[in-house]
Amino acid sequence: MKLLRVGPVGAERPAVLAEDGTPRDLSGITADIDGAFLGEGMDRARRALATGDLPVLDATGRIGAPIARPGKVICVGLNYRDHAEETGAELPSEPVIFMKASNTVVGPHDDVLIPRGSVKTDYEVELAVVLGGRARYLDSPEQARELVAGYAISNDVSEREFQLERGGTWDKGKSCETFNPFGPYLVTADEVPDPQNLALRLWVNGELRQDGSTKNMVFGVDHVIWYLSQFMVLEAGDVINTGTPAGVALGRPGEPFLRPGDVMELEIEGLGRQKQVLR
Amino acid sequence: MKLLRVGPVGAERPAVLAEDGTPRDLSGITADIDGAFLGEGMDRARRALATGDLPVLDATGRIGAPIARPGKVICVGLNYRDHAEETGAELPSEPVIFMKASNTVVGPHDDVLIPRGSVKTDYEVELAVVLGGRARYLDSPEQARELVAGYAISNDVSEREFQLERGGTWDKGKSCETFNPFGPYLVTADEVPDPQNLALRLWVNGELRQDGSTKNMVFGVDHVIWYLSQFMVLEAGDVINTGTPAGVALGRPGEPFLRPGDVMELEIEGLGRQKQVLR
Repeated sequence: MKLLRVGPVGAERPAVLAEDGTPRDLSGITADIDGAFLGEGMDRARRALATGDLPVLDATGRIGAPIARPGKVICVGLNYRDHAEETGAELPSEPVIFMKASNTVVGPHDDVLIPRGSVKTDYEVELAVVLGGRARYLDSPEQARELVAGYAISNDVSEREFQLERGGTWDKGKSCETFNPFGPYLVTADEVPDPQNLALRLWVNGELRQDGSTKNMVFGVDHVIWYLSQFMVLEAGDVINTGTPAGVALGRPGEPFLRPGDVMELEIEGLGRQKQVLR
Repeated sequence: MKLLRVGPVGAERPAVLAEDGTPRDLSGITADIDGAFLGEGMDRARRALATGDLPVLDATGRIGAPIARPGKVICVGLNYRDHAEETGAELPSEPVIFMKASNTVVGPHDDVLIPRGSVKTDYEVELAVVLGGRARYLDSPEQARELVAGYAISNDVSEREFQLERGGTWDKGKSCETFNPFGPYLVTADEVPDPQNLALRLWVNGELRQDGSTKNMVFGVDHVIWYLSQFMVLEAGDVINTGTPAGVALGRPGEPFLRPGDVMELEIEGLGRQKQVLR
């Protein structure tokens, strides 16, 4: 299934794409696409979709993030060999973890706001994993896969000066308003047989800047979930941004950071496309 | 007012302490003590308390965290001169910021779990600030105070090996299960005229380990809120842990980290007491 939420900010309605591509209304099945639904409501949605009786969604316009505000957004840093190289960092021997504030999550086509005083706003296309169950001290990476509800595109927008030059951890440059465009839809795990073989790309003003594959992750999805579960309790609805391939502005000659009016477009194989304008 | 939540995990009921010290039921006023209530329900609770008509709470036993799960828990590192010294860190020139996963928040007397494989679990008594409104690009620290709903005790439990020796940011050692005992109650801001003049103490097995005052913060509450609002949008219900004074295990001779069976007790002037057993 491709799950999505359509409507104004804070009043999105849950939906699922039918085979003909039209969004069908899930309001009769669930109030929202949140942790509770991802944990135990997906079968209800699947059955309802199969009957063909779901009404066409009576809402148009803005597409929101495909899930309600997550409990947490956890990110893996330097998780692609080529990206670690371009930032001058050593390849990590175990996953590098940081967090984004979960109110950074916005719709896939919403404007991205350059923070006041920023001169180093940067982009990062990432495969996002959404949990469908609780993960606590998993015994092995093999136990992780069944806890994945689905996958989506994340743009892990980052302010490099705030992240790297303002003291302390990376969090100051990762949690600015609108810094996590998400979606357009959540593709359920059954439709993504191999999350380690997806092409991912990002363009700025039409110029291809990132062109990678999840094949090149240092630590794969299963390993990351298992690893995280040793340090914290993951819950249904939590989001993990699994890292970005090479090509960010920080790693390019002349550091072409984002400017007002710039347009970002992102794509991951099978997960759709995003497009944001910088403001 | 002293707001609290009483009942089993996940089924706490909202309450307020009456002048005679008995908890009165706020269920008729609000479903929970959360961002929505802190933003606009406090006057309703205040009026109801003043009438004397609030029923005595029909619940006993466990005290939960005094607020429902926050949208985010933001922490200020190295924010007391003496604590920065003991950890060997330089005094920061601007606030050091990191985040805890918000599902670390537990009741003030709940057990604290030593993570598997941990040998460096540590304690940190902290003044927690709970937001009652939205803070976005505040013009000055003076604008911050009116956005504070109230204050409570936080124990910012930390695993030093995970935090400092496992690569990347501090988040791995800050977000373990049960790592943020909170409460026992939220004291509304009107009852804390000067948050920069509160004694705070922590004992382990009856031995006084931390004995400080919020006077010695490097960056005061108002400054921290103003500062954070330049990097992220704060919302009603968000929690800020404002840093810990000297005396943590990491800074003591022999590094007396916590062991199963140890008992932590915490106190902040006017904000009550906490007591946790390590498991």
